[in-house]
Amino acid sequence: MTSRSPDAVNTPFLDKVTDPADLRSMSVDDLCALADELREDTIRTVSKTGGHLGSSLGVVELTVAIHTVFDTPKDKLIWDVGHQCYPHKILTGRRDRMHTLRQAGGLSGFTKRSESVYDPFGAGHSTTAISAGLGFAAARDLGGDEGDVICVVGDGAMSGGMAYEAMNNSGALDKRLFVILNDNDMSISPPVGAFSKHLSRLCMQRPVQDAKAIAKEVVAHFPQPLREGVDAAKDAIKGLMIGGTLFEQLGFSYVGPVDGHDLPHLLKVLKTVRDRADGPVLVHVQTTKGKGYHPAETADDKCHGVTQFDLVTGKQYKSNGTAPSFTKVFAEALVDEAARDESIVAITAAMPAGTGLDAFAERFPERCFDVGIAEQHAVTFAAGLAAAGLKPFCAIYSTFLQRGYDQVVHDVVLQGLPVRFALDRAGLVGADGPTHAGAFDVGYLANLPGIVVMAAADEAELAHMVATAAAYDDGPIAFRYPRGEGTGVTRPEHGQPLTIGKGRIVKQGRRIALLSLGTRLGECLKAAEELDARGLSTTVADARFAKPLDHALITDLVRDHDLVITIEEGATGGFGALVLHYLAGEGLLDGDVRIRSMTLPDVFVAHASMTAMYEAAGLNAGSIVETALGALDVADTVTPERRENLIALA
Amino acid sequence: MTSRSPDAVNTPFLDKVTDPADLRSMSVDDLCALADELREDTIRTVSKTGGHLGSSLGVVELTVAIHTVFDTPKDKLIWDVGHQCYPHKILTGRRDRMHTLRQAGGLSGFTKRSESVYDPFGAGHSTTAISAGLGFAAARDLGGDEGDVICVVGDGAMSGGMAYEAMNNSGALDKRLFVILNDNDMSISPPVGAFSKHLSRLCMQRPVQDAKAIAKEVVAHFPQPLREGVDAAKDAIKGLMIGGTLFEQLGFSYVGPVDGHDLPHLLKVLKTVRDRADGPVLVHVQTTKGKGYHPAETADDKCHGVTQFDLVTGKQYKSNGTAPSFTKVFAEALVDEAARDESIVAITAAMPAGTGLDAFAERFPERCFDVGIAEQHAVTFAAGLAAAGLKPFCAIYSTFLQRGYDQVVHDVVLQGLPVRFALDRAGLVGADGPTHAGAFDVGYLANLPGIVVMAAADEAELAHMVATAAAYDDGPIAFRYPRGEGTGVTRPEHGQPLTIGKGRIVKQGRRIALLSLGTRLGECLKAAEELDARGLSTTVADARFAKPLDHALITDLVRDHDLVITIEEGATGGFGALVLHYLAGEGLLDGDVRIRSMTLPDVFVAHASMTAMYEAAGLNAGSIVETALGALDVADTVTPERRENLIALA
Repeated sequence: MTSRSPDAVNTPFLDKVTDPADLRSMSVDDLCALADELREDTIRTVSKTGGHLGSSLGVVELTVAIHTVFDTPKDKLIWDVGHQCYPHKILTGRRDRMHTLRQAGGLSGFTKRSESVYDPFGAGHSTTAISAGLGFAAARDLGGDEGDVICVVGDGAMSGGMAYEAMNNSGALDKRLFVILNDNDMSISPPVGAFSKHLSRLCMQRPVQDAKAIAKEVVAHFPQPLREGVDAAKDAIKGLMIGGTLFEQLGFSYVGPVDGHDLPHLLKVLKTVRDRADGPVLVHVQTTKGKGYHPAETADDKCHGVTQFDLVTGKQYKSNGTAPSFTKVFAEALVDEAARDESIVAITAAMPAGTGLDAFAERFPERCFDVGIAEQHAVTFAAGLAAAGLKPFCAIYSTFLQRGYDQVVHDVVLQGLPVRFALDRAGLVGADGPTHAGAFDVGYLANLPGIVVMAAADEAELAHMVATAAAYDDGPIAFRYPRGEGTGVTRPEHGQPLTIGKGRIVKQGRRIALLSLGTRLGECLKAAEELDARGLSTTVADARFAKPLDHALITDLVRDHDLVITIEEGATGGFGALVLHYLAGEGLLDGDVRIRSMTLPDVFVAHASMTAMYEAAGLNAGSIVETALGALDVADTVTPERRENLIALA
Repeated sequence: MTSRSPDAVNTPFLDKVTDPADLRSMSVDDLCALADELREDTIRTVSKTGGHLGSSLGVVELTVAIHTVFDTPKDKLIWDVGHQCYPHKILTGRRDRMHTLRQAGGLSGFTKRSESVYDPFGAGHSTTAISAGLGFAAARDLGGDEGDVICVVGDGAMSGGMAYEAMNNSGALDKRLFVILNDNDMSISPPVGAFSKHLSRLCMQRPVQDAKAIAKEVVAHFPQPLREGVDAAKDAIKGLMIGGTLFEQLGFSYVGPVDGHDLPHLLKVLKTVRDRADGPVLVHVQTTKGKGYHPAETADDKCHGVTQFDLVTGKQYKSNGTAPSFTKVFAEALVDEAARDESIVAITAAMPAGTGLDAFAERFPERCFDVGIAEQHAVTFAAGLAAAGLKPFCAIYSTFLQRGYDQVVHDVVLQGLPVRFALDRAGLVGADGPTHAGAFDVGYLANLPGIVVMAAADEAELAHMVATAAAYDDGPIAFRYPRGEGTGVTRPEHGQPLTIGKGRIVKQGRRIALLSLGTRLGECLKAAEELDARGLSTTVADARFAKPLDHALITDLVRDHDLVITIEEGATGGFGALVLHYLAGEGLLDGDVRIRSMTLPDVFVAHASMTAMYEAAGLNAGSIVETALGALDVADTVTPERRENLIALA
């Protein structure tokens, strides 16, 4: 622990912990002191790195309790989503690297298998832990890795159908498995839906103080083992506690609610269930997001995701950017359209703030639907709205719409229903890394028959695409835009519908054509400037549409240039692939044109700044120039010396 | 009704029904007689066309009751999956076209928006109805289409998480919405999981006879409206009926169980809920799959999906094929591998018979997991099994794996976990039509970093690919194979692992190269024969791998031939796209090679025989020849007269 920063406070107990085994010989009092130090260390770390603060602070005691009671890493601790794992990382040998959190080359902001044996299953998306945990439990009973399995799942994640599928299967398989419901009554936004009300009702039936006392009593009365004389035991717990619950009906033994910040009690409950369970057990733990840090406890979002901040005030340092975020541009454009067209409605899957739809909901509360972390339902619900004659905008991050892929195919596109998909966080996303990258949407959407797929090159284009989607009622339409700030271009007062399937020439040249889809347009213009300077006159075009393709534009570019390069912020199988397929089919590749297709590389790009990630991905201006020079015989325009320089630069 | 076949029996009541409005003036006795005729008509129809018999027979009375009580098509009736819709089609103006069911140009085997205004939302996949229905209900309350919404969902579909997401959201939105749980205690296979046990428990608590009496009593005591004095009413129902249920906890009023074959009672219950509900209501209806047709009632699968059959005996006519189905070849190869490697386990999502895993389960019951209609969970559960050191084979139809796409990306591929995906029903599937086509899997899988994707050209290849997947433990691997019979090639005693990323030359030629992925190989060989006969010496290669590509093979084909054509049984963005991307990147398109990429067309191919569908899709030998001749200047090998003939043939 020698690498700690000089301003670190005194953390005598935490300093003794090299790995979780060190916790197991500590007294309960010492563990309580350790938990306080762990909380402080977490706050101090995140104040310097930014990250998911509130969730991590809510599980400090739970993290200590689990690692103390269970034999990690032999026992598998699976954090759902994984954004609450900072205390876990500090305790599991990664304390001295916490200052690298979410930075290039540093620790991931989520759990990650390749980072530690204490991360048996990585995450980033929600609601996967119980399924994975049941896999570990079933494998163990068939001779796979030994050990118990503990899944920690937030109440927000329980609105995802996958949790229900997994609970249902767990109840049927009846494997020994621990699911800890981390109930902070709030996921990213306040949780929605009937399930959330169900939890609230459970919790209200008894004050936590009472419930604690009862829980102790119940624990004392557990038969040995927990499910010996299973019916009697379960009925007793039922009677004493909160009556039949969703979880019990799905086959789990239910224990709770337990105060998640009362470490001595948590330790007792976890030890008891560890010693006595022989089937699936759900431990309902109540926590406070942001616990123990006043600025977080009092913030609306409980400091869910923060930038670097001042330790004393909790005030987050703002970036210097002046351009609005694409998210904000989308939201403002949609509100503008909706003010003039009352058939426009909006759907979010538990991300009203992240998608900007909070602004829409404020203006049109009846016309905004937050369905919870339930992307499958979100998409088909939107299909129903469209079938009934409304104009639904389904605003889901590119990476999360993967959850609703079959619904996009089967319920929306196959039926030709005019659902509008607003795909935020398209392309690489920076610190959140590969789990959150929007790499695949152009491929998984634009190869479906009859859909329209657009990508915005800047804020003005995005406003026009929102207007295009509002005006287009002939079938499904999607538009994608990246995380972060725009370029600062002037935005129109109102977006104007674009002609479907028509791109635009942004800069006319003669020898090379760069055909961009999305916000690489800026890099294309930079690259064109450099290529022009080398005597390689370069055209830059903005395709706007991945589908339908602008055949006339593409044909002209190919016929009028020696080299055409397509560029997109996505994986193979997307825009470039469709362009190549078109060109091949038309025989336009038969002549002597040269063509290159620049996409994300065939790897998951590690987290870093967005600029650094695109640099690593080979999609910045320098790489475009390099690709162009490599494709042409540059010797005829560049001297050998200069060529050497170029190679050195590349 | 003049077009009915001469052997039709006397159906006086059914003959009076032109559309459902005709039902509403009939007496209950007449409706009962009509239901009997409707059942007979359904059996008679399916005996000639084949189709989903058991499900349709189970809902005859329910269909009559819903159309009598509700004002369809203004009221929206949404059948989940849609395979139980034959009686519905007969009553809604399609009786005279029932003989065209599932045949080229004929009626779809599922509900379909473009087919009838009585099909407000089409289906094919399971568990979408409540989400769509809630969309209609929410739209109605915002000025969209008027009318009530009735969703009919089978108990098997309730294991899908999407149902839970939708119920959760329905409870929260509290819209007037009717969900009818069609509980036949069996989806395609006997339903699995804790939810199924929950239903069984509910039903066992009171015999149906008793429950019927109680239901009548409850209905008589409903306050006016149903949710006036909501707590008292709900508690009364709860107390009288079966205690707190899953549905009530999710915010639904619960009515049932009701005998789904007692039409007078069904009519009363539906009228009562129609008149009194002002929030979401779940009506629990018990039905018997195959009801009223002895051969169906007594069959193991209740005649879920049948070929044409003899009316009296129920004996299904077999096809003349002698080759084993790909499904059977997969299952036998997997059992063979599993007999020699006890770490192999298998997962199915409610399709043990459809995937052939019933044979695996019989041999290795502990090593086979049927997780229910729950593809999301299936994939991440498999990821957990793999992370714990086992070798999971996740056998899911190509079209259904779309449901688990995010889990494939986020839980399996991103973590590099060695889950084996066995994708049955790849490509076009015949009578089930576009909802079941496996068109997109190569695209949605092979563009993910680090996965291996194979496609089997015949049964022997499939056996080798099963062996390859069993042997390959370095990461995720998928193999696809089509519906239906193989080609009859000799199978190896044991499959032999293939070299990853290596294709094979099947026939060496000089001028044209056909590079096939999957079972179009046979059509390629036919096309090559024709091209050879025209003096165009043709090579045929089997790529085997869509990823990693066999770069050496592809490079050789391009360098050694004037024309290379890739062929696959999938949409754009897949194998051909990856080949083009590779060739472009390597500058191999810069010269004078000609290349064409044959994929499924950019439309949803309508149901017909598989051969006819591939003909329509332009992927049979004739189209390959045509593409080759079009790409080359055929004038130099073919006389003008012969060319005319070719064009005439094409």
